Amino acid sequence: MTQHRIAILGASGYTGAELVRLIATHPAMKIVALSADRKAGMAMDQVFPFLRHLDLPVLQKIDEIDFSGVDLCFCALPHATTQVVVNALPRNLKIVDLSADFRLRDPAEYEKWYGQPHTAVELQREAVYGLTEFYRDEIKTARLVAGTGCNAATGQFALRPLISAGVIDLDNILIDLKAGVSGAGRSLKENLLHAELSGGTHTYSMGGKHRHLGEFDQEFSKIAGRPVQVRFSPHLLPMNRGILATVYVKADPQVVHATLAKAYAAEPFLKVLPFGALPSTRDIAGSNFCHLGVIGDRVPGHAVVVAVLDNLTKGSSGQAIQNANLMLGIEETAGLMLAPVFP
Amino acid sequence: MTQHRIAILGASGYTGAELVRLIATHPAMKIVALSADRKAGMAMDQVFPFLRHLDLPVLQKIDEIDFSGVDLCFCALPHATTQVVVNALPRNLKIVDLSADFRLRDPAEYEKWYGQPHTAVELQREAVYGLTEFYRDEIKTARLVAGTGCNAATGQFALRPLISAGVIDLDNILIDLKAGVSGAGRSLKENLLHAELSGGTHTYSMGGKHRHLGEFDQEFSKIAGRPVQVRFSPHLLPMNRGILATVYVKADPQVVHATLAKAYAAEPFLKVLPFGALPSTRDIAGSNFCHLGVIGDRVPGHAVVVAVLDNLTKGSSGQAIQNANLMLGIEETAGLMLAPVFP
Amino acid sequence: MTQHRIAILGASGYTGAELVRLIATHPAMKIVALSADRKAGMAMDQVFPFLRHLDLPVLQKIDEIDFSGVDLCFCALPHATTQVVVNALPRNLKIVDLSADFRLRDPAEYEKWYGQPHTAVELQREAVYGLTEFYRDEIKTARLVAGTGCNAATGQFALRPLISAGVIDLDNILIDLKAGVSGAGRSLKENLLHAELSGGTHTYSMGGKHRHLGEFDQEFSKIAGRPVQVRFSPHLLPMNRGILATVYVKADPQVVHATLAKAYAAEPFLKVLPFGALPSTRDIAGSNFCHLGVIGDRVPGHAVVVAVLDNLTKGSSGQAIQNANLMLGIEETAGLMLAPVFP
Amino acid sequence: MTQHRIAILGASGYTGAELVRLIATHPAMKIVALSADRKAGMAMDQVFPFLRHLDLPVLQKIDEIDFSGVDLCFCALPHATTQVVVNALPRNLKIVDLSADFRLRDPAEYEKWYGQPHTAVELQREAVYGLTEFYRDEIKTARLVAGTGCNAATGQFALRPLISAGVIDLDNILIDLKAGVSGAGRSLKENLLHAELSGGTHTYSMGGKHRHLGEFDQEFSKIAGRPVQVRFSPHLLPMNRGILATVYVKADPQVVHATLAKAYAAEPFLKVLPFGALPSTRDIAGSNFCHLGVIGDRVPGHAVVVAVLDNLTKGSSGQAIQNANLMLGIEETAGLMLAPVFP
Repeated sequence: MTQHRIAILGASGYTGAELVRLIATHPAMKIVALSADRKAGMAMDQVFPFLRHLDLPVLQKIDEIDFSGVDLCFCALPHATTQVVVNALPRNLKIVDLSADFRLRDPAEYEKWYGQPHTAVELQREAVYGLTEFYRDEIKTARLVAGTGCNAATGQFALRPLISAGVIDLDNILIDLKAGVSGAGRSLKENLLHAELSGGTHTYSMGGKHRHLGEFDQEFSKIAGRPVQVRFSPHLLPMNRGILATVYVKADPQVVHATLAKAYAAEPFLKVLPFGALPSTRDIAGSNFCHLGVIGDRVPGHAVVVAVLDNLTKGSSGQAIQNANLMLGIEETAGLMLAPVFP
Repeated sequence: MTQHRIAILGASGYTGAELVRLIATHPAMKIVALSADRKAGMAMDQVFPFLRHLDLPVLQKIDEIDFSGVDLCFCALPHATTQVVVNALPRNLKIVDLSADFRLRDPAEYEKWYGQPHTAVELQREAVYGLTEFYRDEIKTARLVAGTGCNAATGQFALRPLISAGVIDLDNILIDLKAGVSGAGRSLKENLLHAELSGGTHTYSMGGKHRHLGEFDQEFSKIAGRPVQVRFSPHLLPMNRGILATVYVKADPQVVHATLAKAYAAEPFLKVLPFGALPSTRDIAGSNFCHLGVIGDRVPGHAVVVAVLDNLTKGSSGQAIQNANLMLGIEETAGLMLAPVFP
Repeated sequence: MTQHRIAILGASGYTGAELVRLIATHPAMKIVALSADRKAGMAMDQVFPFLRHLDLPVLQKIDEIDFSGVDLCFCALPHATTQVVVNALPRNLKIVDLSADFRLRDPAEYEKWYGQPHTAVELQREAVYGLTEFYRDEIKTARLVAGTGCNAATGQFALRPLISAGVIDLDNILIDLKAGVSGAGRSLKENLLHAELSGGTHTYSMGGKHRHLGEFDQEFSKIAGRPVQVRFSPHLLPMNRGILATVYVKADPQVVHATLAKAYAAEPFLKVLPFGALPSTRDIAGSNFCHLGVIGDRVPGHAVVVAVLDNLTKGSSGQAIQNANLMLGIEETAGLMLAPVFP
Repeated sequence: MTQHRIAILGASGYTGAELVRLIATHPAMKIVALSADRKAGMAMDQVFPFLRHLDLPVLQKIDEIDFSGVDLCFCALPHATTQVVVNALPRNLKIVDLSADFRLRDPAEYEKWYGQPHTAVELQREAVYGLTEFYRDEIKTARLVAGTGCNAATGQFALRPLISAGVIDLDNILIDLKAGVSGAGRSLKENLLHAELSGGTHTYSMGGKHRHLGEFDQEFSKIAGRPVQVRFSPHLLPMNRGILATVYVKADPQVVHATLAKAYAAEPFLKVLPFGALPSTRDIAGSNFCHLGVIGDRVPGHAVVVAVLDNLTKGSSGQAIQNANLMLGIEETAGLMLAPVFP
């Protein structure tokens, strides 16, 4: 099979490492360059010993990479940095970006949520939103795809078909989300230490402050054809991988279930459970699957949708490869059918 | 100080062991009898090695205990069993029960939630509901106090003052609750195994099926003077101790905060954080404290209350001792000011 | 590629599920039958929701399986049961057994460690010991291969080349082993509950009582040509997957390192780190790799070897597939090059 | 009861917070000053929300504290900084130091293990080693007590009576130690992140590099009257509190057990289990107890001692209070009989 030549910028973070993990058994991708600014010169297994068995390029600075030999570039850099870097890359290079920099279409919204003006507005306009199942056609022909936020992906898988079908009250949507810690990256923060985080439940960015709200607003309003503002309460849990979104909607539970089941019937990665059954994050950890369940609440006319996915896989790096597969003309599921790891 | 003589029935479970842990440094209680049916004859440190340093009575069968030498009896047995056992105890014995058997006033409600008719209706009528901060006067003179459910306590600490003050919409109350695993007891269930539970988020008893809803209905309806039905979604998390309830109400957030702050200003165990600050279960693990925080949601007119407590302490055994203190005429906080354990 | 038809007996346990996980992306195996005695009639995803995305046969009783359509059978049943079941299978069926029943050559040793006489001595004699890297040639032509104990595999990877090369003192070998909880299976035992196990360190089967000592004795004595008795202290840790063996030997550390490095230079799954670097279980979780490190102790003439592997993969089900690959004439690494999952 | 006035320097670290936790229910100590250099001006509950229920002094810089009103000062600062700070404190102030700065008697040994010359050699000479059970008389009259390393304490509780009694081979002592993460402090290091540490086993400072070896050498050689060098292999585990030391000795196991049982028969905090029973870290977490067990190995003449304690309590802050009690003429166990927290 043709081996597409892949570069990964920002390979020393968790999403970068997850890309390497997945590409390791991908039948049609070959890593030809890895960048990590502060760790340039190091071998990848010094940064991530779990990749020791692989034969990988040494980490480089971005400007040392010869992009002429690259077919597609994954960019796993922090936001703000990303727009500068991507702006400087060759214009014909296919790029799947995993940062927040190209997710929002409206420069004003970007500035509102990220606190600074966008410096590559043209690229922002060009980018296709990377929620594969809903942007497949655009992604196939895109040059620049913007991976979604991991929480944003989870909430959208639960809600998009319901908004499209007009079966829920748009003014009564609440997402109570439980997120694993790898979503915060390999960053040295006190609240991410084992001693602080393990064995407990914490809230974070509650009260309408979480940046993924920008994506919810953009996408849900677009589908609904009117402004939609969901409520969104994230919690940080002692799990390394996984997001569970408990989504509360005002709707007929059976209709909710039927709508999701129909919408995702042919999707290889989205699985809707029988009515009343609810998934756990342990069911999907390490994989590109998203499981969804629906139950009726005791108060008639209210339903609860529970969606789970692995933030590092379906929520970022797996999604990125799924998009790259489409952009490269490969089978969409290539390299992504790995089963979850349990226990 | 006078040493009140204490018996604990059901000492081989987690709430029984927690009673022993707390009484170990209580200035005015002395354990004179411990029961555990199947483990009768064993020493307590064979069942719970962490109590090895204490000089404790050998485990007995209940009918081997001489209750004439007992001032107060904690009953930490399963529901249904409890009503039979308590019915057979001396009628002048002070009892703090930790089971579900005497929490509900209405025999029909008991049968609805617990699946069988109550067999000690007279005792059910006699029992005082054990949420100390709201039933202090009745508890002081009670003979039989019914400890609350741990989830029920958490939700009520967040909501009772708001319902009393009439500051929230009674038809829009939602409790998304995150519970630690010790609340399920020392029971051999597959879903409680480390290999199954750790590192993930699970739902349980969702869709209006959790039995603590019986307590919510009873208490909230009583305060409101009309039927109140909250929605309640419990999740099981990889933490041994602690409950975090994220409580969604339709109300002015500042009013919610002011109402809670005022209601609990003089309470030794209930701490309301400054507006906008939210607690974590790690802040109260191992202690009898309940911390509460309030934040406004992005959609005006909606507030989120976050309440945390330790299910084994403030949610059951600590609450039980607090009640016993009142019943015995001891300082309410005696033996209960232990600081949480962190990290 | 030819799809070899696979049956798995005992599919409702962790090693059975791990076989399914690995075969899910194996290029040359197809599962045609799954057995689980008490769960016969259930779908696999009712027992293991993480396998929901796969199209798998319904669970059957063993005697309902038509073995004429099976090329190779994995047997993941408890010991003692296994010898009865395997004895009743067709004599021409290729079998990879994951239990302890065929690991020991000497019936007396089996009885000593497992407490009852062996009832299928002929099969015991026929079976080839399944430590692939050391029994490759025998495995290729074997009909019945006995998978090793997971702890036994870890210790042997650290020690076999050292004993063969005669570079360590045979009377001073100590293995202090740290094991994850999935090694104990999906069994309902109090000590395996999250509430009991998490956040702590426990010992188990210490003082020469662990059954894998039978394998150590058999194999090390055979290599050494004289009786060898290692000391072995297992500990149970709050991790779901992984074993770390800290192996203490009296030897020149550099020689120890060189001996291991040379022995495993061409092995696809065994990786020897640079001298002085030591692996963690997190480096190999979810994969078929075993990493080994060597360091010198402060007391000259003493070395420490640290070996890590995933008990469910390289320690049992991955090893089983590696052996099956050889028995079926497939590439040895087929389906097994999945990277570890981190974080 | 007289309230002794206490200052804590370095109150923003874990050992500082643990001192506050324990003093919160101490009958004869009152905290009058707390220092934290970079967090001066903050309230303690901003740094440690779990202490929210306490009425504590605001954090200060050290030079803002009026030591004339202080009876005893706990110093929980990093090593090297400590010697400078303590040197500048009033010479009549009673001090319990929790750092490594005054543990070693020999300035050359200090420099060897800590990489720089000691700058307060006179204080080093004055300090009494703080392993209470073995230095009680000296501690009672000491002005400056040097708390032991937490690993060093664990190993010494297992070994000191055995060395004193001459019942073990001094040239064959091996300590394989499993340590919880709070021992590393509240420091922002990648290997301490939840995502890196949880669910796995890591080694650290192996091969004779751990600094607590300096204490082992000093103390064991002093008792033995000849140089003793133990081997010591520390492992870092996913538990917040607790150390389990598996100590391998060449000796008669029954004699080992009898020696420890006799040595600790009257000790309030040291509990020797029946022969063959071994403790877990879960048995002592959150408490000042140390449990010890002894078992015979399969190779005759070898014994294994397993000792467990909580690194933050008996291993540092609890030990410090035990010493302070002696220095202040209070009951040695005052404030320290809190039961462990389980589950």
